[in-house]
Amino acid sequence: MKSEFSNILIYGLGLMGASLSLLLKKKGISASITGVVSSSKSKTKGESLKSADTILTSEEFHSTKKWKDYDFIIFGVPVDLTAKLIGELPLDYSGIVTDLGSTKKEIIHAVESRFPNSHNYVSSHPMCGSEESGLEFANVSLYEGRLCILTSPKNANSEAKKKLETFWRTVGTEVIEIPADEHDSILSYLSHSPHILSSIMADWAANQKIIKRYTDLSPIPLNGGGFRDMTRIAGSNPKMWSAIFASNQNEIHQSLLDFRNRLDIVLEKLNPKNILDPKEWERFMETSRKSRDYILKNQDDSKKH
Amino acid sequence: MKSEFSNILIYGLGLMGASLSLLLKKKGISASITGVVSSSKSKTKGESLKSADTILTSEEFHSTKKWKDYDFIIFGVPVDLTAKLIGELPLDYSGIVTDLGSTKKEIIHAVESRFPNSHNYVSSHPMCGSEESGLEFANVSLYEGRLCILTSPKNANSEAKKKLETFWRTVGTEVIEIPADEHDSILSYLSHSPHILSSIMADWAANQKIIKRYTDLSPIPLNGGGFRDMTRIAGSNPKMWSAIFASNQNEIHQSLLDFRNRLDIVLEKLNPKNILDPKEWERFMETSRKSRDYILKNQDDSKKH
Repeated sequence: MKSEFSNILIYGLGLMGASLSLLLKKKGISASITGVVSSSKSKTKGESLKSADTILTSEEFHSTKKWKDYDFIIFGVPVDLTAKLIGELPLDYSGIVTDLGSTKKEIIHAVESRFPNSHNYVSSHPMCGSEESGLEFANVSLYEGRLCILTSPKNANSEAKKKLETFWRTVGTEVIEIPADEHDSILSYLSHSPHILSSIMADWAANQKIIKRYTDLSPIPLNGGGFRDMTRIAGSNPKMWSAIFASNQNEIHQSLLDFRNRLDIVLEKLNPKNILDPKEWERFMETSRKSRDYILKNQDDSKKH
Repeated sequence: MKSEFSNILIYGLGLMGASLSLLLKKKGISASITGVVSSSKSKTKGESLKSADTILTSEEFHSTKKWKDYDFIIFGVPVDLTAKLIGELPLDYSGIVTDLGSTKKEIIHAVESRFPNSHNYVSSHPMCGSEESGLEFANVSLYEGRLCILTSPKNANSEAKKKLETFWRTVGTEVIEIPADEHDSILSYLSHSPHILSSIMADWAANQKIIKRYTDLSPIPLNGGGFRDMTRIAGSNPKMWSAIFASNQNEIHQSLLDFRNRLDIVLEKLNPKNILDPKEWERFMETSRKSRDYILKNQDDSKKH
C-alpha cells in the first residue's frame, strides 16, 4: 500500500495505537511506523510483538527525536497527556496531526490555543475502545467497521481533513464529523456515564453480604449473562478513564442527573405501598427495547419475540 | 439415556422449556416429553421444530389431560401463572414437580399453601435466561455449565429433591440450594434491578435530541460496545419481566434505593463546583474492577492490564 506518508509517529502504543500500527503494517503500508511507549518494559513487549518498526520510550523520544522527523503524528495517550503534548508541537509543523481521544473539548481547546493560525490538526475518535488495554491485546481487526468521529478545531486546513478522512476509510472505519461540544455531550450518554454506572453496579452487588456469602459457597458465579455484560466496562483502564471523567465532568454530571431523575420515577412506582400494574411494566420493557433498537439502528426486528 | 421418568410434562415451551426438551431428546432420554404452549400458532411452530414429542395448547391440555398423566412436571411459564397452576395440582400427586422461575417467594408460598403436608415440589432456577424468548430460539447448549439454584418449600420430600438434583446435573448445570428470601434478594441485585437499569439507560440515551440527530445522520450506530452490552437485556420479554418485577417488588425497590444512594455519592463528586482528583477516580475504577472480578470469580487476572 502506497502511503501519503513516509514516517508515521504513533505516540502511545496502547491497545488502539498498537492495533492501528499492526493493521497498517498488515495492509503493507510503505511508511515507517515509530511507536512511543511509557516504559522500557512496554518497549521490550512491543519489540517482541513487533508492534511498530521502531519503538521508543517517551524518554528516548524526547531526547533523540523531533516532531518534525514525522509527517503524520497520531496521539494514542490519555486526553490530559494529549493536551499537554499539543503544546509542544512546532508552530510551523507541516505534517498531519490527530489523536484517538474519547473527549474533544479539552483537546480542541489545546489545539486552538497552540495554533492561532492555520494548522493541520484534526481530532479523531475511532469508537473501538475495549475494557482491555495495553499493546499485548492489540489486534488488526479492532477498527473494522467501527465509527470514527472527526472533530475540527478552528483554522484546520481542509486538505489535512480530507487526507485524514481518506486515511480512516482505508483503515476500515466509517467517518462522521461532529463538533467538540456535541461529541462530548453524546459520548457522556453513550460511553462515559455508562462506564460510571457499570462501575457503581459492580461495587453495589459485590458489597452485599448475602451475595458474598453465596458467591463464596457457589461452585460457579451466581450472576447470569446480563450482569456480566453490564459490568464488562467496569474493568476498563483506570488511568485513561480518570482523564476522560475529568475532561468531560459537566456533561457526565448532567447526564447522570438525568439518569437519576429517571431512576427516581421508577423507584416511586416500585414503592412497596404501590401495587404494580403489569401492563404498565410491559410497556416500560417494550419502550426500552424500541429505544435500544433505535440507538443500535436495529433494522431487523424479526429476531425479537 | 434411561430415565427415572416415563412421561415428562414441560408446561410452557418458551426458550427455556423448549431448550430443555431438545436437550433431553438429544441425550436420548427414554421418557416421552409433552410440551404445553399458549397458542395454536406456537403449537404449529413447535411441531415443525420438533420441540417436544407431543405439543398441546393450554386449552387442549386442560380439556384432555390430567396432571397425573405425568410423573415429572416442569413449569416454564411466568411466575404469576406458575403460582396459579400450583393451586390446580392434585394434593396426592406422586410425581416430581418443579419450575424454572426467576423469583421464589411467590412460588414457594403457593406450594406451601397448596400442600400443607409432604409433597414432591422443589423449585428450580437455572440461570440461563436470555433477552431472546420463544421456542424458535431454543438451543441444546442453553443449560451447559450454568448454575441451577434449588429452593425447597416446607415439607418437600427429600427423595424428590435428590432426584431433581440428579436431573439437573444430568442436564449439565451446577447445583446450589438457596432459600427463597435469600434467592430473591440476591437476584434483585444480580438480575432484576440490572434489567430495570438497562431499560432506563436505553430510554435515557434515546431521548436526547443530540443523540437522535446524529443517530439519524450517521451511517452506523453512534454507540460502542459498552452501551450495546449494557442495554442488551433492555430487550427482554416484557410479559415475563413484568411478572418478575411484581413478584419481587420489595427487594427490587430496596436494591435500587441502594443503587441510587451510590449514584448520589458519585454525582456529588462530579458536581461542576468540585475539581476531580484523578487518583480518586483511578481508585474508583480499580475497586469496581475488583468487585466485578469477585462476583464473576475471575481467578485469572493476567488478561487485565
